[in-house]
Amino acid sequence: MTNRQRFTNACRCQPVDRPPVWIMRQAGRALPEYRALKEKYSFLELVRTPELAAEVTLQPIRRFDFDAAIIFSDILVVPEALGQSYQFLEGKGIEMKPLQSAEDIGRLDTTAVCERLDYVSKALRLVRKSLGDRTALIGFAGAPWTLACFMLEGGGADDYTKARRLFYSDRPLFERLMEKLTGAVSAYLRMQIETGVDAVQIFDSLGGTLASDAFAAASGRWITEVVASLQSRVPVIVFSKGVNGNWRDLAATGAQVLGVDWTVRLSEVRARLPQNIGVQGNLDPLVLTTTPEIVAAETRRILNDMRGLTGHVFNLGHGLPPTASLENIAAMVDTIRTFA
Amino acid sequence: MTNRQRFTNACRCQPVDRPPVWIMRQAGRALPEYRALKEKYSFLELVRTPELAAEVTLQPIRRFDFDAAIIFSDILVVPEALGQSYQFLEGKGIEMKPLQSAEDIGRLDTTAVCERLDYVSKALRLVRKSLGDRTALIGFAGAPWTLACFMLEGGGADDYTKARRLFYSDRPLFERLMEKLTGAVSAYLRMQIETGVDAVQIFDSLGGTLASDAFAAASGRWITEVVASLQSRVPVIVFSKGVNGNWRDLAATGAQVLGVDWTVRLSEVRARLPQNIGVQGNLDPLVLTTTPEIVAAETRRILNDMRGLTGHVFNLGHGLPPTASLENIAAMVDTIRTFA
Repeated sequence: MTNRQRFTNACRCQPVDRPPVWIMRQAGRALPEYRALKEKYSFLELVRTPELAAEVTLQPIRRFDFDAAIIFSDILVVPEALGQSYQFLEGKGIEMKPLQSAEDIGRLDTTAVCERLDYVSKALRLVRKSLGDRTALIGFAGAPWTLACFMLEGGGADDYTKARRLFYSDRPLFERLMEKLTGAVSAYLRMQIETGVDAVQIFDSLGGTLASDAFAAASGRWITEVVASLQSRVPVIVFSKGVNGNWRDLAATGAQVLGVDWTVRLSEVRARLPQNIGVQGNLDPLVLTTTPEIVAAETRRILNDMRGLTGHVFNLGHGLPPTASLENIAAMVDTIRTFA
Repeated sequence: MTNRQRFTNACRCQPVDRPPVWIMRQAGRALPEYRALKEKYSFLELVRTPELAAEVTLQPIRRFDFDAAIIFSDILVVPEALGQSYQFLEGKGIEMKPLQSAEDIGRLDTTAVCERLDYVSKALRLVRKSLGDRTALIGFAGAPWTLACFMLEGGGADDYTKARRLFYSDRPLFERLMEKLTGAVSAYLRMQIETGVDAVQIFDSLGGTLASDAFAAASGRWITEVVASLQSRVPVIVFSKGVNGNWRDLAATGAQVLGVDWTVRLSEVRARLPQNIGVQGNLDPLVLTTTPEIVAAETRRILNDMRGLTGHVFNLGHGLPPTASLENIAAMVDTIRTFA
């Protein structure tokens, strides 16, 4: 069984020899070879140059032989392709001009999203060629809701209130924005699927800011439209961080796999879902900043919890911390490979 | 039925004419009369001067006639009473020297916590006297886990990693810290109960940073010890924000009421709990920054969801935003009062 088969089988709740493993944000600052590239290029140069994005995507595969690679990119390339550009300020995070009016939303240009994101296609083709059949390749995009949060705030915020306020107070305008984002995200993911990715992940990192009763209308509905537009061509992983009371809404999106953060028990989530929906997660990312012994113990705890259940893709419960040590990542991977 | 009876009945899952209501952080920046006082006094002067703390506590009661008042104070008064002082920097939040070593933890002095917090007793007695039998009075403290997070970070943080890392990597030292905090919080809450409060709330605002399997040992266990030390003299409300997969652990703390954030449906949580445990919450705080019509609709949604169930204390799912409007708060309260 190749890494690629193991990953795609697990996504479809089919038998595997052991759970496949990859790490959200595995390509990035935790790796010295990434930091070396960052001395020469900015984050956005790495994202926008196909050869560099491909190289960064492959770095963690060379080092850890993960079952899947995920293309090195950023969820904010979609707002940028719609005409809302952003900068990445070292140590300060994202900065973009916020959407502040109906006119700003009206100006978002959905006509050439894929052309503008052609560099991602090129990077994906390079990576696919390097990986061959050995390793799965994952494409991704931000969920419309999460993108809307960033676009209305103009970047990161302590508390993402603007998208929620728009949702409550001007539903027609909110829906105009979401329709544009849903169309753009759908087209972008279809383009990624054309290049031969084995699965796509939709990151709804800010889904957990929503009230339980608002989630379906504010986020779930739009994810469902995106998933439907992909026509089941590849498995879709939906990671709606912090949404731990809406498993029904999440299952209804059409996702084959749901990403699960570290604050809930994986087997309990799996038991609440239809049998044909898998789960991905959910080691506390912080554990990768402790010691190999602790990493091994916590990894085994999750493997034991999920023992005998199909449809488990091992991952962290959120992105890899930049301060994670390489020996801790290795200890996690080794524990999964040798688990019996 | 007085406001006080309504509140204490609901806490004990006994019949009420309508759900009682109060708001986390009801005494504070949303009120013009509070902002006027803040022109003359610093936050910590207001906290530490019994007459001023009492005045600030009473302000929202005068304006909205809430069923319960909560003493105006801060969870960090306990670390301060242990010898770790802090400052409140306008616009920047909390700043305290972080605990960085076993020696720092060893130096925390648990011998005179209540003496040092005598100003809280004095404020509580003043408030009790003003409220008479009309309105319930709630005391509070931070949960040991949440206090440990702030004390190890030295204030607020983007991601509270230090307490989790200590929990995973040096359990004996973690437990020494938690024993001190548990003792201090218990003594402090007992002192508040002596002054005649009707209930106490334990704020575990950072409980949701913990992995599901870690919650019981890192936070739940210590809350349980605090609750046990209070010997059921008054109802205890435990608000462990973001802990939405561990209702069993939370029920096991001995709390009479569990605070619930806005990301889960209240009736579903209530159904998963033993019949004698109530729930408090859970309007999305952001809704109070929209319009009275939206506030009324969202409030009714929660009231309808909980219709016919005992043990519901209406509240927000987290603290009152400073930008909430007075007419929105009034709309929420009116909707609850007139709901049939």
